[in-house]
Amino acid sequence: MSSYKLLKQECFEANLQLHTLGLVIYTFGNVSTVDHDKGVFAIKPSGVPYTNLRPDDMVVIDFDNMVVEGALKPSSDTKTHCYLYKNWEHIGGIAHTHAMYSVSWAQAQKDIPIFGTTHADHLTKDIPCTSPMDDDLIVGNYEHNTGVQILDCFTERGLDYQEVEMVLIGNHGPFTWGNNAAKAVYNSKVLETVAQMAYLTIQINPDAPRLKNLLIKKHYDRKHGKNAYYGQ
Amino acid sequence: MSSYKLLKQECFEANLQLHTLGLVIYTFGNVSTVDHDKGVFAIKPSGVPYTNLRPDDMVVIDFDNMVVEGALKPSSDTKTHCYLYKNWEHIGGIAHTHAMYSVSWAQAQKDIPIFGTTHADHLTKDIPCTSPMDDDLIVGNYEHNTGVQILDCFTERGLDYQEVEMVLIGNHGPFTWGNNAAKAVYNSKVLETVAQMAYLTIQINPDAPRLKNLLIKKHYDRKHGKNAYYGQ
Amino acid sequence: MSSYKLLKQECFEANLQLHTLGLVIYTFGNVSTVDHDKGVFAIKPSGVPYTNLRPDDMVVIDFDNMVVEGALKPSSDTKTHCYLYKNWEHIGGIAHTHAMYSVSWAQAQKDIPIFGTTHADHLTKDIPCTSPMDDDLIVGNYEHNTGVQILDCFTERGLDYQEVEMVLIGNHGPFTWGNNAAKAVYNSKVLETVAQMAYLTIQINPDAPRLKNLLIKKHYDRKHGKNAYYGQ
Amino acid sequence: MSSYKLLKQECFEANLQLHTLGLVIYTFGNVSTVDHDKGVFAIKPSGVPYTNLRPDDMVVIDFDNMVVEGALKPSSDTKTHCYLYKNWEHIGGIAHTHAMYSVSWAQAQKDIPIFGTTHADHLTKDIPCTSPMDDDLIVGNYEHNTGVQILDCFTERGLDYQEVEMVLIGNHGPFTWGNNAAKAVYNSKVLETVAQMAYLTIQINPDAPRLKNLLIKKHYDRKHGKNAYYGQ
Repeated sequence: MSSYKLLKQECFEANLQLHTLGLVIYTFGNVSTVDHDKGVFAIKPSGVPYTNLRPDDMVVIDFDNMVVEGALKPSSDTKTHCYLYKNWEHIGGIAHTHAMYSVSWAQAQKDIPIFGTTHADHLTKDIPCTSPMDDDLIVGNYEHNTGVQILDCFTERGLDYQEVEMVLIGNHGPFTWGNNAAKAVYNSKVLETVAQMAYLTIQINPDAPRLKNLLIKKHYDRKHGKNAYYGQ
Repeated sequence: MSSYKLLKQECFEANLQLHTLGLVIYTFGNVSTVDHDKGVFAIKPSGVPYTNLRPDDMVVIDFDNMVVEGALKPSSDTKTHCYLYKNWEHIGGIAHTHAMYSVSWAQAQKDIPIFGTTHADHLTKDIPCTSPMDDDLIVGNYEHNTGVQILDCFTERGLDYQEVEMVLIGNHGPFTWGNNAAKAVYNSKVLETVAQMAYLTIQINPDAPRLKNLLIKKHYDRKHGKNAYYGQ
Repeated sequence: MSSYKLLKQECFEANLQLHTLGLVIYTFGNVSTVDHDKGVFAIKPSGVPYTNLRPDDMVVIDFDNMVVEGALKPSSDTKTHCYLYKNWEHIGGIAHTHAMYSVSWAQAQKDIPIFGTTHADHLTKDIPCTSPMDDDLIVGNYEHNTGVQILDCFTERGLDYQEVEMVLIGNHGPFTWGNNAAKAVYNSKVLETVAQMAYLTIQINPDAPRLKNLLIKKHYDRKHGKNAYYGQ
Repeated sequence: MSSYKLLKQECFEANLQLHTLGLVIYTFGNVSTVDHDKGVFAIKPSGVPYTNLRPDDMVVIDFDNMVVEGALKPSSDTKTHCYLYKNWEHIGGIAHTHAMYSVSWAQAQKDIPIFGTTHADHLTKDIPCTSPMDDDLIVGNYEHNTGVQILDCFTERGLDYQEVEMVLIGNHGPFTWGNNAAKAVYNSKVLETVAQMAYLTIQINPDAPRLKNLLIKKHYDRKHGKNAYYGQ
């Protein structure tokens, strides 16, 4: 029996969840889940519709982007996942979608401003949108360079990937992550929700101000601070 | 057997209804139901997904915010509910959501204008949106102060909580109430519907006028006036 | 057995259809169906949720607005239906909703321009929106006067109620009709669809022109003209 | 047994799929599938609701627009399908809908700009919107001329129908095609998705730039280029 059975099962379930939550149609997205100790991650196979997916279709990849187990070709975005896992040791899962409102902000090339407590319950910063990729990076190792682009964006802006668990790739769409694959998918849904709220907010009031700093801190800390009192 | 069994069951069902009506995802909301005679209310536990909820998970709280019965921690918004129950003796249930259009008006920091009869069938005023909370109140007893903020808003504007059964907390989201928990949930759905209609109205016609006073009065009175003739 | 059994059954099914099509929530709408020979129509009872409705709950009304059969109070909009049936002998059913996009155009106090063939497949005119009712008519026989308002609007604009089977009451919402109750409900769905399309059209292009006259005529005639060739 | 049984079955399933995907209501659309060797195509009958459709209701038509098999009248858009099949030998299926966002761009008389990778994964050009038809063509052989209009548009703009598998007819709606009927339906869904994303993009940022050329090429080529590496 495969020693990656549980990893593949977790990856499979997270991919299905993406579909159930209405975040993907057809093959427009992928989730992976990592085992840092073994140095491998499981990822959705490329171009297979969610409705046809089985646990054993998941492809196991090592940190050199080589297939360790699986009969199918892995997601075309595999190298982006790999680069993030190699550089960010504390994340356990990554999700990528073409969800409607997240993509629309990415296409608009705009950060999503922090307008309210729904946003601040999850992170204290605007959701970053990277610039479109430089030409030499596109013609180079494109999917690897998408990972580089994400890390560069976080470095330039001084963002902490353990707090800001989401990014928009300019003109493309969202990547989200978390301590496991289910959390990465949860963050994709939160991002899509916050993206729609922000869209509606600026339609109602183009001059809507960002949430005040004390409210950002209050809401983030009551869920994530050292004296957090939200949840069980 | 618990002497709060019925109270908890009613609270549980109202919370589920919030989910069924599409007003919440994950744990983004809560409903409570009160027994004024016993001086207690039942409320959703904090951070528990709606899909996992059972009637016995509801937490019973007294008017000093102390847990009377229940193994779980109550909603982080418990003190807001408590404050409203203590001050408004005629309400039987309270609901809080992060529903899309309601939150977007709250983030836009705008009252929802009374544009039509759907609105006037339920209340005769614009739906109030409070200002963002003052800094000293945020760092103080935040959830208690959210209740204070709601009452202050109603006092300043001369609103009657038995007619206007809903409010938007600026940058946060809606609270609604009613003579029981089911009515509070009904009001959350009505608010969300009216919020979407008002959003679309100003997109179609930024100069759309408020509903004329006689039509406001006519529609409100035929459902709620002393000669009401709507319903059975 | 009631001699109105079939009439009530047809009315019941059309009311349920309104709910199934997503055009109403709670009690926000009503359908009636008429028997011109017997001089009566069946209509939804007032304030009863669609999910609780049974065929025998339908109320049978004569053309003097008197209840002929039924234990419940009829829809508060009964007099509007009655006035239309008395004056427009060729209609067999009427529907009223508070559907989202239809209401939003009514609240914006704008006719819905004929922008495309989806509209022209059903009627050749802009969908009329009446002005808000005059004060003396509101304080008078309000629901009866809503019917008067519709007929006056059609007379002033020279519209044919057998071609234009829909109207928006300014600040209120849509009424639609047809040769039977099912067709009235169909028209409510068509109106809602066309209303959403027109809304999106002006968001994309505020200067979008009306459909050219020859295309209006072509599309209307291929479904409804004397040489119609659409359908079986 | 009919020698067109498989053709009709494929056509039937593709028509149902249009409905399942939320791209049509009532009778607002049609799909056909062709057998170039036999010189016939199967198409949805005119004006029959999707919910009533059976495989044997599909109508088989030859390239002179004559019915070869079938008891029902074919879609009123049959001549458009026929013209495309006669002129474009490499397409196997065609779909026509009145889907919400696709129609709204058509009514706005605007091409859909290529704003992101979701679009570029499928084609490298803006999605073309034809001008409204000239008067003499409308009063002539209208549905045939709709086909002429599509081909003229592709010729004028130098578009390749094997790459750009979709078009908007100004003021009307979308036609899509592909190497079989299922692919044509897939393209209708992709078009509707891209149309909604582009709509939201210009609402968020009216000055949103088109996707840069290298990213267009990169995304198109990784799915469709000679070194494509997307999919299995």
